[in-house]
Order: sequence, then structure tokens, then C-alpha cells
Amino acid sequence: MNNFTFYSPTYFVFGKDEENNTGKYVRRFGGTKVLIHFGGGSVVRSGLLDRVKASLEAEGIAWAELGGVKPNPRSGLVYEGIELCRKENVDFILAVGGGSTIDSAKAIAAGVLYDGDFWDYYCGKPVEKALPVATVLTIAAAGSEGSDGSVITKEEGMLKRAASGDVMRPVFSILNPALTQTLPAFQTAAGITDIMAHLFERYFTNTKDVEVTDRVIEGLLMTMIHEAPRVIADPDDYQARANIMWAGMMAHNDCCGVGREQDWASHNIEHELSALYDCAHGAGLAVVFPAWMEYNMEHDVMRFAQVANRVWGCPMDFAHPEVTAKAGITAFRNFLRSIGMPQTLAEVGGKEEDIPYLAHTACYGNGNSGTQGGFVVLQEEDVANIYRLML
Amino acid sequence: MNNFTFYSPTYFVFGKDEENNTGKYVRRFGGTKVLIHFGGGSVVRSGLLDRVKASLEAEGIAWAELGGVKPNPRSGLVYEGIELCRKENVDFILAVGGGSTIDSAKAIAAGVLYDGDFWDYYCGKPVEKALPVATVLTIAAAGSEGSDGSVITKEEGMLKRAASGDVMRPVFSILNPALTQTLPAFQTAAGITDIMAHLFERYFTNTKDVEVTDRVIEGLLMTMIHEAPRVIADPDDYQARANIMWAGMMAHNDCCGVGREQDWASHNIEHELSALYDCAHGAGLAVVFPAWMEYNMEHDVMRFAQVANRVWGCPMDFAHPEVTAKAGITAFRNFLRSIGMPQTLAEVGGKEEDIPYLAHTACYGNGNSGTQGGFVVLQEEDVANIYRLML
Repeated sequence: MNNFTFYSPTYFVFGKDEENNTGKYVRRFGGTKVLIHFGGGSVVRSGLLDRVKASLEAEGIAWAELGGVKPNPRSGLVYEGIELCRKENVDFILAVGGGSTIDSAKAIAAGVLYDGDFWDYYCGKPVEKALPVATVLTIAAAGSEGSDGSVITKEEGMLKRAASGDVMRPVFSILNPALTQTLPAFQTAAGITDIMAHLFERYFTNTKDVEVTDRVIEGLLMTMIHEAPRVIADPDDYQARANIMWAGMMAHNDCCGVGREQDWASHNIEHELSALYDCAHGAGLAVVFPAWMEYNMEHDVMRFAQVANRVWGCPMDFAHPEVTAKAGITAFRNFLRSIGMPQTLAEVGGKEEDIPYLAHTACYGNGNSGTQGGFVVLQEEDVANIYRLML
Repeated sequence: MNNFTFYSPTYFVFGKDEENNTGKYVRRFGGTKVLIHFGGGSVVRSGLLDRVKASLEAEGIAWAELGGVKPNPRSGLVYEGIELCRKENVDFILAVGGGSTIDSAKAIAAGVLYDGDFWDYYCGKPVEKALPVATVLTIAAAGSEGSDGSVITKEEGMLKRAASGDVMRPVFSILNPALTQTLPAFQTAAGITDIMAHLFERYFTNTKDVEVTDRVIEGLLMTMIHEAPRVIADPDDYQARANIMWAGMMAHNDCCGVGREQDWASHNIEHELSALYDCAHGAGLAVVFPAWMEYNMEHDVMRFAQVANRVWGCPMDFAHPEVTAKAGITAFRNFLRSIGMPQTLAEVGGKEEDIPYLAHTACYGNGNSGTQGGFVVLQEEDVANIYRLML
């Protein structure tokens, strides 16, 4: 295990109806004038936005509002949000929505207190100051409700980049699983896939002796495998939603990733798909991750056999561990298919002839230095081969 | 799953040599005059105290010091610490030691800012203010480095009581597994038992649909089972120590206990043993917990079978789940014996004729209301029966 620091100071408020306490928590964490940031119409139509506003009103807290966040949130809205906050003397950012809304809120929170262009933070400048951010979460997926990160896309050049910093961790996050019950099955399944990807990206490591985080990751993966079919069969299964929602937070606040190298190649290889074909991030991951696994299995057969045996229940073939390792990847593919996720490049709108472009951009776009990953360092040709495995 | 809040704002600094950064973190978290609180001679003899002081000196931070914390920390030293802090204008409490030292430091931190008797907090008054507390941990066991709780014994009447409050959570905790390498095997094993007890006390619940926390608890238990024999065989196994140390934190910052009822009867039944016979808390738990399990197994055979199968690898007997359930308890007993823990009341100095007194005090002493536990509500006679199972 490597030396590490771990810091997850978010106050989590979990359960039915808790969004009605939003105002109380804004007050507790010092907000006096709030920017409510949200996406499309569903938080309006469902009445959630009104309930949140009522709770602010009950505490006498004023607000401004900015809707319109889209998946793969854009810098344009961030600039707008920063300007609005300055004009309105906002001192607290409240994201009501999913990962995109929260990421956009984090960017605004950091940008308001910065004299320069907020995009600097997404080009490597450490984020050292930000207004407090809080969230009312509406989908279990990105884990941004407990993480220090934010991903924003700049319209010019469609650059998709990440920033992170402890000051961007939400001061509180309200997680009401009932709010996710209205999600379509496809979005629910894409969220589940994203959560599992966050776990696998931490699982595949070259760091030795990480039993404690291995075991916690495996436990969270088994939770997803247990709860996903329940929630796909019955979208109103509150209990299954609740288990998935908490697992989604734990998958990405980094309690599973401490003291070990991580490998985010799959996420980055997927980013090219959602950028070019505008597919759901989770759906793209369902296509990418099994291919990435297949391509890299030989690098550490025993690690793949371990997850196959412990998580997927594949019997260990002691004479041929690669048989077990492969059976685990097949089990993952079957699981993804069973929850309605795509399997091939074509299913997310991809084309074989785009592969050279995709591989090149994955390795050299967005300021990348020519390779991807750390568990196995992938060259452009490797990434192309992984895309080909998705055909 | 029940509604819950979860808040674990401690900044964890984990790994080799990190105690040399203590001063840096005290500065970051606002300390200008520190009380260094510690126990016996080992932190002095090992040079740890000197390294901590050197790191404070390097940051120009002044300190006062108060040693002498004993296992089952006493109120007398807390009063002394409060007085010292006021005299010296201390604004930050640094515990260098294990659970007892940290608990004593938390009591001082709360007491300094309170006009009344700090013991009020241990009689149910909510703790709303405290000086910041930080820790340099020297044993993986109590989990106080990440928890909101503190247990103190009042000399008059030897009352052992707990207080808790978010303001008592350490602002930072430094966890260097190498510092635990000098511990005698018995203390290491007692710490391991305490950690496993913290997990079981959350595991045995009547709350349904808690797959996510079940799975995380099971993962941490399996970590302990994997790492304990390694560290008993080789006390210098840094990696095994590291896995145990992080599992010990996770076992008790309550990330495993959220959204579910917990049952702390075993801890309380043990407290009577360490109070009367002055045995190590972990050793007492090794005697108490299997007996508690045996007595309560019938209340939820499938839950006992689940842990037996998932954690201990006992084959599931579908026709006779109670066979699997019992095999799990036996496996736990065998494990405890294998790491050198006691099995019987006699081994911790207990006597059969004390049982009526022990059972009565467990149920009616320390302000208790006549019963123990929540998974199964135990009357005095039940507690006596559990003590008899330890003969």
C-alpha cells in the first residue's frame, strides 16, 4: 500500500423526503444567498425544484437560479453562472441534479472566487478557493456528490477536461433514493455501469498488498450485481435504489482508491465516444470496459481471476487461471447485457472507420501526452486495438 | 435502509514517516498552541514524542504536554488537562497514542470550552463545542481516530460512560502503520478483535435491505481474517499492518453502520469484564462475542448463515441453515484462538460466582435502564446466561 491522504468532509443526508431540509442545511453551512443550479425540465416537472425553494424560503434564504445544464456540461453556462453569482452576490452554490449539474456547479463555485479564466483550473492550475457547493442528487452514477472532481467541456475545440481540489467537495449532499425512481431504465442502467466502472478503475492496479481496498471494492461491486436486476425489474424498488445510491457515493469519494495506483484509461477511451457520438457516458463505458479488460487481461491474470472468483462467483481454475479470468469478463458482459446496456461500437453509433481518429484523440487530444492508463500503459495502437475489440 | 446522516470530515494522512508532518497539519488546521496528550513511556522511549515535537518546532508552534493516560482513561486526568489548557491558552489538542489517549483528548477538548463539569457530556448532554482534536495513532483498534465518540471512566463509582458529537471528530489523524510494529502480539490481537467487534456490532441488525453496508462489513472482516495471521507471524509486516490499520478506521467511522440499527450489547457486556478484572478490552470481547452470537443465533439464523458463508467460507447447508450459522461461530472462535485470544471467563480472570453481579451491572449500572441490545433485547437473566456460556 502506498502512502496517501484521504479527505471526504461532505455531510451526507440520506433518505426519503430529505430534500425538504435543504434550507436548514444551507443555513447550517453558512449560505445566505444561493445560486440554484439545475438541468432540464425534470426537476421542474417533478416539483423537486419547488420543494427545494420552499425549504430555502422557510429559512429566509434568498436565491438566484440558473437552469439549462446539459450532459457533458459546457463552459458557456459556467461563465454565465460566474457572472450571475457576482452580480447577485451569491455566497453558496446548490446543484439540484446529477453529475453534470454538480460538475458545472463546482466550476462556477471555483470561478467566482478567481480573477482569471476559470478554465485555467481545467488546464492544471490547482483549485485553492471556491464558494461552498452543496447538492441534491437525482441520479446514482457520477459520484460527484462526494468527490473533489469536475469535468467540463469547452465549446471551442470541444475540449473535455477535469479539475479537482478538496475545496470543490460538496459541503453537504442530500441523497433521496426516491428521487431516482422516475429515471428511465436505460439511464438507471447507465448510472449503474458508471458506478461499476469507478470501482474497476480503482481495482486494476499494480500496487501490491491492497487487500482492504480490494475487499471494499468487491463488496460494492457485489452490491451492484445484487441490486441492479431488482431495480431494472421494478423501478419503484426504493430499497434497491437506496443501496445503489450509497454504493455510488462510496465508489467515487475515493475511500476505495486510497493507497493504490488507479487506471482511468477506460474512462478516457469512453470520453471519445460520448464526444463524437453523443452517447450516454455509462452506455459508452459498457462497450469500452469489457474490451479494455480483454486486451489487458494477460498483464495480471491472477488479478482478473480474483475478481472473477470473488465477485462473479466463477470457480477458480487453479491449473488455468486464465480460464477463470476470462469467465469473469464474460460474466461482466452478460450482466451489462441483462440490464440493457450496449455491447458494440455500432450500438452507440460508432463506426469502424473512425477508430484511427478516436485512438489518436484519446492519446493526444485534451492535452494528453501520447499514452493512456497506468495498469498497462497504452500506446495509440493499443487503444485502436481496444476499439476494434468493440466491433 | 433507514434514513441517516453520515459525516466523517477527518483529514487522514496515512503511511510511513507521516508523523514528521504533524506540525504542518496542526498549522493547516489552525492550531497555535498545542496540548500534546499521551499515555505511558512507549511513545517517549520509541522517540515518537520527540519527532512530533520536532515537527511542531519546525513550524514554530508552541506546546504544553500531559502524559499518563491509562487504558480505560479516567476523568481525573481530563480535569487536569482542562485546567492546563486554560492556564496555557491551548487552542488545539493533539493525542499521540491509542484509543484511550484519543478519548481522553476528546474529553479535554470538549471540557475546555464548557463552563460546567465536562462529565455532563458523559451523562447525555449533547457536545456542541470543542477545541480541535487531532491524533497520531499508535495502535489499530478503537477507531477513535475517525469516530465522534469518547469513553471515559469516572473514578467515583468507576462509572464508564460514552459521549459523542461531530465536534469531537479529529480534524486530522496521522496513521503510520510502522508505529504499530513494536506492539506485543497480544495487544495486536486484542486490537484486531476490537476492530472485528465494531464490524459485527453493526452487522447484526433487524434492518432489512442493507446489502451495501453488509457487503462492506464483510469485506473488512475478510481483510482482518487475511491480514491477522500475517501480522501475528511477522510483527514487522508493514503491509499487513497497513491493511489492518485502515480497516480499523473504516470499521468505526460509521461508514459501515449507516442506515441500519446497530447492537452494542457485546461491548457493554465486555465493559463489565474489563472494569472488574482489568483485562484488555479486546481480550474481553474475544470471550464475550462468540457467546453472544451463540445465545442470539436463533433470532435470525439466515443472517448468521450469511456471514458464515460469505465471510468464513462455510458451505451453505440449505436444508439446515442453522448448521452453517453455527459453523460460522465456530470458525470465529477458532480464528480468535489462532491469534492468541482467550476463550473463557477464567482466562480473563473471571469467576462464575461474579456472574449475577456482572449481569446486574451490565443491565442496571452506568445509567442503563435494565436491558441490553437491540438486535435481541436482553434482560438481566439473558445477560447472565451469556456470561455462563463463557465458562
